[in-house]
Amino acid sequence: MKVVCVIGVGLIGGSFSKDIKEHYPEVKRIGIDQNEDYLKEALSLGVIEEIGRLEDVVKADLVFIAIPVDAALKVLPLVLDQVSAHAVVVDAGSTKASLCEAVKDHPNRRNYLAAHPIAGTEFSGPSAAIAGLFKGKTQIICEVEQTAFKLQEKALEVFQALGMRIRYMNAAAHDVHIAYVSHLSHISAFMLGKTVMEKEENERDIFDMAGSGFESTVRLAKSSPAMWAPIFKDNKKAVVAALSEYIKNLEHFKSLVEANDFNGLYNQMEQTNRIKDILTGLAPQHK
Amino acid sequence: MKVVCVIGVGLIGGSFSKDIKEHYPEVKRIGIDQNEDYLKEALSLGVIEEIGRLEDVVKADLVFIAIPVDAALKVLPLVLDQVSAHAVVVDAGSTKASLCEAVKDHPNRRNYLAAHPIAGTEFSGPSAAIAGLFKGKTQIICEVEQTAFKLQEKALEVFQALGMRIRYMNAAAHDVHIAYVSHLSHISAFMLGKTVMEKEENERDIFDMAGSGFESTVRLAKSSPAMWAPIFKDNKKAVVAALSEYIKNLEHFKSLVEANDFNGLYNQMEQTNRIKDILTGLAPQHK
Repeated sequence: MKVVCVIGVGLIGGSFSKDIKEHYPEVKRIGIDQNEDYLKEALSLGVIEEIGRLEDVVKADLVFIAIPVDAALKVLPLVLDQVSAHAVVVDAGSTKASLCEAVKDHPNRRNYLAAHPIAGTEFSGPSAAIAGLFKGKTQIICEVEQTAFKLQEKALEVFQALGMRIRYMNAAAHDVHIAYVSHLSHISAFMLGKTVMEKEENERDIFDMAGSGFESTVRLAKSSPAMWAPIFKDNKKAVVAALSEYIKNLEHFKSLVEANDFNGLYNQMEQTNRIKDILTGLAPQHK
Repeated sequence: MKVVCVIGVGLIGGSFSKDIKEHYPEVKRIGIDQNEDYLKEALSLGVIEEIGRLEDVVKADLVFIAIPVDAALKVLPLVLDQVSAHAVVVDAGSTKASLCEAVKDHPNRRNYLAAHPIAGTEFSGPSAAIAGLFKGKTQIICEVEQTAFKLQEKALEVFQALGMRIRYMNAAAHDVHIAYVSHLSHISAFMLGKTVMEKEENERDIFDMAGSGFESTVRLAKSSPAMWAPIFKDNKKAVVAALSEYIKNLEHFKSLVEANDFNGLYNQMEQTNRIKDILTGLAPQHK
């Protein structure tokens, strides 16, 4: 690899770019972003070697797209229009079906690998980029059979160099499952934050009474609206289904509290304690 | 101080006992618990020096009650019946109004200090006890004027030795506010865990797709039902109110997704991002 174009030099794109430097020190990394300030910041932080434009993707061996999904839906076809035959184009979006659908008839569909690295933090921008962010994390790859074999191989080599575990999924199944384990967590946290802030007009009460439990549960409410609004729009059907199930469970829990059904409350929580074993299973990869 | 009785030798009582040893090495710590296994474990871990019975509180200079609130409502009056005039009885329960009400006419009400340390983890039992758990954490004290002045002083000295920040509150206000910043977080996490587990019959999907965001948001779903069912029962009115607000906000968010109201979603999240500043304010005390 000689040239990598990183489209979107924020948390995910910037972290990827840092890892590329670590594992492929000879590669020139060109940053492409709508946000000129992000580009300058990424350059000054050494996250990229050069500021580029979309037409620079013609020079790339690998293009990494890490921008909000509404923007990716427009940019991905333009990138595929221009890339060379040997280039692999990977995205990092949190939804996969609409992107796969958007380029399914593109003459260069075989250059695209639909991916979703299960990695990130609640922060954003080039200064939030972290070297080693992807180490031990899962890379979900969708519709792998639509990507040229040699380009699959090339992308896998990079993901493995970064220390990722690879999992293959159907794009539609990905979107439904991720609505539960990721999108719903974000909505849950955002609405918890909103509910508490509405109640506590005097913020000093929050300062003094909130502990590490609240902090952990509400952490994702710091996340970027520019990233998340497009995800909820794009994955509407699965998000609404997951959210409806969640609300139904909350309503039921409320009815148990109202009915003084102590055993019912106890049993619900005891059954849910099984999440311990599931989270323990996650431990080495996701800590 | 010569003797401290710790009623409930789990996470909170055990951690308190460890700190007492650190700061008052001459004190004998007597553990009292319904759970014989916990008592043996606490003894073998050095969390207490001696296993006792409830009647041993007569020997105590300080009694620390850290048991589920339904049990505390029964035990606190029995403790006050027996303690010596110079002893201070402190509890650590997550609700305060019902306890204050239960002993408001007790002849030894002045020996009781109603407290709620904002500290803990999602784990339980003597093996979960952590030295230094209370350092830098907030100790909320309710109805302080009902406690004998000398006993307030004695308890404060201990809390300060442990490194705690003291805040005074009305018991009813405490219960309403804590429903939002603590009890609601737990329900939110428990129901998130339940919703995801119901959906994902094949747990491998959770293992592979859940990242640190889900882990953080669902962490409190590991908490002890034996502690939390009594809290929800005890604080029913405030919990139902907080939960109703939360469900209303989730329903509204869902309606914005359904209506494709992109700007509405964006604005809700952007406004909630202000939680960043609130959580930053928490940082040194609660990390």
